Amino acid sequence: MDSYDVVDLIRAKRDGRALADAEIEWLIPAYTDGRIGDEQMAALAMAIVFRGLDEAELNAWTAAMIATGERMDFSGLQRPVVDKHSTGGVGDMITLPLAPIVAACGAAVPQLSGRGLGHTGGTLDKLEAISGWRADLDPAAMMRLLDEVGAVICSPGPGLAPADKKLYALRDVTGTVESIPLIASSIMSKKIAEGTPALVLDVKTGAGAFMRRRADAEQLARTMVGLGTAAGVRTVAYVTSMESPLGRAAGNAVEVAQAVDVLNGDGPADVVELTLTLARAMLETVGIEADPAEALASGRALQVWGAMIRGQGGDPDAPLPVASHTRVIEAPRPGVLTRLDALAVGVAAWRLGAGRARKEDPVQAAAGVTWTAGVGDRVEAGQPLFTLHTDTPERFERAEQALDGGWEIGEGPAEAGPLVLERIE
Amino acid sequence: MDSYDVVDLIRAKRDGRALADAEIEWLIPAYTDGRIGDEQMAALAMAIVFRGLDEAELNAWTAAMIATGERMDFSGLQRPVVDKHSTGGVGDMITLPLAPIVAACGAAVPQLSGRGLGHTGGTLDKLEAISGWRADLDPAAMMRLLDEVGAVICSPGPGLAPADKKLYALRDVTGTVESIPLIASSIMSKKIAEGTPALVLDVKTGAGAFMRRRADAEQLARTMVGLGTAAGVRTVAYVTSMESPLGRAAGNAVEVAQAVDVLNGDGPADVVELTLTLARAMLETVGIEADPAEALASGRALQVWGAMIRGQGGDPDAPLPVASHTRVIEAPRPGVLTRLDALAVGVAAWRLGAGRARKEDPVQAAAGVTWTAGVGDRVEAGQPLFTLHTDTPERFERAEQALDGGWEIGEGPAEAGPLVLERIE
Repeated sequence: MDSYDVVDLIRAKRDGRALADAEIEWLIPAYTDGRIGDEQMAALAMAIVFRGLDEAELNAWTAAMIATGERMDFSGLQRPVVDKHSTGGVGDMITLPLAPIVAACGAAVPQLSGRGLGHTGGTLDKLEAISGWRADLDPAAMMRLLDEVGAVICSPGPGLAPADKKLYALRDVTGTVESIPLIASSIMSKKIAEGTPALVLDVKTGAGAFMRRRADAEQLARTMVGLGTAAGVRTVAYVTSMESPLGRAAGNAVEVAQAVDVLNGDGPADVVELTLTLARAMLETVGIEADPAEALASGRALQVWGAMIRGQGGDPDAPLPVASHTRVIEAPRPGVLTRLDALAVGVAAWRLGAGRARKEDPVQAAAGVTWTAGVGDRVEAGQPLFTLHTDTPERFERAEQALDGGWEIGEGPAEAGPLVLERIE
Repeated sequence: MDSYDVVDLIRAKRDGRALADAEIEWLIPAYTDGRIGDEQMAALAMAIVFRGLDEAELNAWTAAMIATGERMDFSGLQRPVVDKHSTGGVGDMITLPLAPIVAACGAAVPQLSGRGLGHTGGTLDKLEAISGWRADLDPAAMMRLLDEVGAVICSPGPGLAPADKKLYALRDVTGTVESIPLIASSIMSKKIAEGTPALVLDVKTGAGAFMRRRADAEQLARTMVGLGTAAGVRTVAYVTSMESPLGRAAGNAVEVAQAVDVLNGDGPADVVELTLTLARAMLETVGIEADPAEALASGRALQVWGAMIRGQGGDPDAPLPVASHTRVIEAPRPGVLTRLDALAVGVAAWRLGAGRARKEDPVQAAAGVTWTAGVGDRVEAGQPLFTLHTDTPERFERAEQALDGGWEIGEGPAEAGPLVLERIE
């Protein structure tokens, strides 16, 4: 196999030259096993932030990341397999009701999920609010649950695209996270290595999203659809709004409670709309013609939820943890809620203890924010508008500061903008 | 003292925001003592390659690098002090005759020099071809020689701008050398820390120079003059041509021999021109009205050379090492030398063993290239044009390949372009 001088490759990218497949195929394993230093990959990553990766480079880069690890294989399952990924938002607990709904329609949904970092929550953190529930699942147990129940939400094993794990940790400390090709290859390398034949992506844009600008979100969506398609994964992406938080809760247990409301037919309209949109797309990619709304209304999705939680050691009927302290913010005057900023709500929930600043930090299961009105809703003076939940009341002040200026009551009328902005395939 | 999050600073520079003085004053010592990782500084350096540093940032950056180490003090010397720096070229042994000439006119020249890396030679490597000569000099011996002889050429102690040493080593392996502000601060931090009150810079441009494009060389020259002036150092820069190599020799001992020719009044015209131009500028910056041409013609500069070499343990009368193998390239036909490429000659000398690929490599004292004609000179068919010198004859082939295409014999007439292109102060 050819060997290259990494400094030549860094300089090439810095100067705007595209890297050849063979160069990338040498580079990624060389970094993963330590022949290339972190300082060299950091410089290259920053050059990529400025110069980008073209389509051929990106396909080679992603394939090389996948090749550093194992590939999973769901071909032995009886059900058609389909996965979903969201780039992360505030109150985005969609995975929790979505996986059981799609499973109830006959598909298998292997949802390898992550933990939260920063102001957007992590699916595993949320589920760990459920008594006894565990994120780790060995491959045999995962396959059994997928066949019998149709849905699992668990942490990926360490063997999937180890290059991505190492590279993401490096990017996190070197200011090189914000690169569309590097984000796309990070997400897609894991999804492709996971072996799903079909994938629906939810790419968030707006105040509370990683991609604030819609054009960036669209580009990321297109890039990921291109990568998935090139790797033989049927991939569809939705660009959806994260100007305002989803639903009425941001945190861990509070979002699980909301997911259960959805499965009981009692969820907030925006969450139900997005869940059903993504569910229909997932079913469509695997050719299942069932109606997800019916799976929800019939209670079958709720049954799958219970089986899925029990399958990972959890008790779906146990009461969820409740914060030892709450603080209520009342509406100061009557009117219409004209603005509710997703970032403000997300940061408040984070500061209350729902999220972590560093990977090794714990999270509080009961911490978070709940609210009673969305944009366009009428509120009365003195109505409880937000409730802050935490086990550590010294956090209230900074959480309130985060919320401050993040919402407005006006004369109205006001209307929430569209939630689903675009479909890309 | 304030503390910052280095990732915030990397992201700020990446996004085009200027760093504040206080941020830079925290950053540089934090990197030097290891609180900031190499991978973080590498990402920041790459962001600086793309975004640059403005004047205020650059002054703060350079001052912070100086503050990580010692500062020297020449104020106790009887003679006015002036230093010179060249950005490096092929056959650029100007420092060797220049320091004794300027010293012979009454100034003190503390020439802290480096070793070669790549196709341009290092002054210390050249002088080490002289039997017994040593680059290391303790501060007391340096001061004594400066007072008594007026010139020393030695390696800087490890205490001068240690941040620069660490940062340069990092930039070397991360493709981040090519940044004008980082180059300028690297050079000027050492010169300012050295404590010279006056400085003349020789910034090379052309095929064999680090700055190939004249506009880049001019910008580097202006940046360094600005930095020196802001730090109270009287600084003048010349932009000079490195399209063709200087003189008639590239290597170590072969360049020392040429320096002795200059001091004997028998040097190549281009080397003499550049040496006297820089000598006049150095004397002017410290207000000495002596004529350097007279110091050369009278033999006084040669006397200073002998005293300077002896003062560092060398024997100026010992025969210089001669390569065990030589190979001659003859002119294939009569005509005029119309082109002689500095990079081709420099790489040939490097491959013969005169330079090193890695810092820890040794160099051959006798290796190098000598030639008999410059651009515009008439040559006869069969005339020895180049002589390759090495102790390891297996190197001849790759050296010849480097020279191949680097020179041309035409019908003529041809003229070498101007050597001194511009003065910036």
